Amino acid sequence: MSFADRIPAYLERTEQALERALPDAARPPQRLHAAMRYAVLGGGKRLRPLLVYATGEAFAVPPDRLDAPAVAIELMHAFSLIHDDLPAMDDDDLRRGRPSTHRAFDEATAILAADALQPLAFEVLATALPLAAEPATQLRLVALLSESCGPNGIAGGQALDMEAERRQLDPAELEHMFRLKTGRLLRASVLLAAHCSPQITDAQLHRLEVFADALGIAYQIRDDILDFTLPGQDLNSDAVKAKATYPGLFGLARAQARTDQLLDIAIDAISDLGASAGALRWMARHTMLRSE
Amino acid sequence: MSFADRIPAYLERTEQALERALPDAARPPQRLHAAMRYAVLGGGKRLRPLLVYATGEAFAVPPDRLDAPAVAIELMHAFSLIHDDLPAMDDDDLRRGRPSTHRAFDEATAILAADALQPLAFEVLATALPLAAEPATQLRLVALLSESCGPNGIAGGQALDMEAERRQLDPAELEHMFRLKTGRLLRASVLLAAHCSPQITDAQLHRLEVFADALGIAYQIRDDILDFTLPGQDLNSDAVKAKATYPGLFGLARAQARTDQLLDIAIDAISDLGASAGALRWMARHTMLRSE
Repeated sequence: MSFADRIPAYLERTEQALERALPDAARPPQRLHAAMRYAVLGGGKRLRPLLVYATGEAFAVPPDRLDAPAVAIELMHAFSLIHDDLPAMDDDDLRRGRPSTHRAFDEATAILAADALQPLAFEVLATALPLAAEPATQLRLVALLSESCGPNGIAGGQALDMEAERRQLDPAELEHMFRLKTGRLLRASVLLAAHCSPQITDAQLHRLEVFADALGIAYQIRDDILDFTLPGQDLNSDAVKAKATYPGLFGLARAQARTDQLLDIAIDAISDLGASAGALRWMARHTMLRSE
Repeated sequence: MSFADRIPAYLERTEQALERALPDAARPPQRLHAAMRYAVLGGGKRLRPLLVYATGEAFAVPPDRLDAPAVAIELMHAFSLIHDDLPAMDDDDLRRGRPSTHRAFDEATAILAADALQPLAFEVLATALPLAAEPATQLRLVALLSESCGPNGIAGGQALDMEAERRQLDPAELEHMFRLKTGRLLRASVLLAAHCSPQITDAQLHRLEVFADALGIAYQIRDDILDFTLPGQDLNSDAVKAKATYPGLFGLARAQARTDQLLDIAIDAISDLGASAGALRWMARHTMLRSE
């Protein structure tokens, strides 16, 4: 049975864990809770939770130790998407084929729902029962997640993206922006899961960082390639607004060559893990070859 | 020497600790870092850090153990003020006599600066050196701060405040909204500091919760009284916009009587602590009697 065969069970597990973590829509403030649930439970590929479980497979971490990291990272991802879509940011009316949260509710509710998802992510990590006897581990997860979201993570990457509208970036600058904006949360998915293994070594962590860093940058380039090439894309999207994208700045051929190169770097980084890293390799290839 | 005499040193300590925690304005993304620093270092009464150090005095906690909680809570406070002031929220152009963050920079930068301050608060707690040998303590601080900011904290209180624009609240509902919106972070200031004492008991924590809860509600009522009665207030402020305020809904006399009552409840709750709680009593009285 390959990782692909186990994905439906992991997805089901993720949805149930997210459902448990989110506040009841029947309790006040109902509108806030409804907006939080709308943003999180409204579909999505669950790439980050899958990356958590795939990393766990490489180190034989029991899945129940991984639920909190998977949920925390997905809540954080949902938080960042709500704010990205706001009128003052990307001003997107649609997300996953439905109205974005500020369109489905209102702007103030969307801002607050995101603001509530972020601390909930930390609360999930700090109160995870399967990790309760290991506060040092939980604290490391909190530290890793927090640094992935702040000025040296998502928020910093978004800020660099805004600055990129004013001047053209070179490839290294563009990739650094991707590293923070997109890569840090994928890196967190891998590292949080790895830290749930009591046996993880510094050398293994280092190789996983190389893997995740390459994956994160390649994922964003692939995203931009898809925006450029797929039919039926929103013409009001990033690509058309001439934002900083790899194919936009350096051409489709170079963008494709760079993702191929990054995929090689990622796969090579985890070669020492052998057969146990089958799930991670599957995730890397799937991410690079996906068509949506 | 009374607590009031020690306040200048605590304020100086707070500013230095905040300065150390914030990213360098010279490093990219400069505009994000500048906005974070503008929002945090731009004055403010530092009530929450003072409450942290005052609580620490009651349990003889060395101040260096309290710096991380003081900073984390003040960063979280700054985060919430930036988002409160946004056009989609209270739409305030001024904060502390200067342009609000989205007016001094731009709306997107303000949203991102706040989004970066929130994880930084958790990072400060998770990486505090004077607490590094006590991961269980640090984790408790993270859990307390996270629950103070989510749906059962600041964000939930803001959502209740928005709902209050649609229907009139009764006194208990209004106080519950204040409890979440304003009280939870004051409560966190007291509880985080208390948890930095290795000797703290559950009974003491319970009394501190009663103290902080009364203080938080009273603080918000006092805030609204000041908006109503002080000359030179911004006529475009909460009061005039007929938001949910205690004096607005139930009259000034009843608002004043309620703060007096809450002050009694707060002082009574910590009577067992005796002389060691002098700083906490000072903070409670000062909060209730302040004229700005």
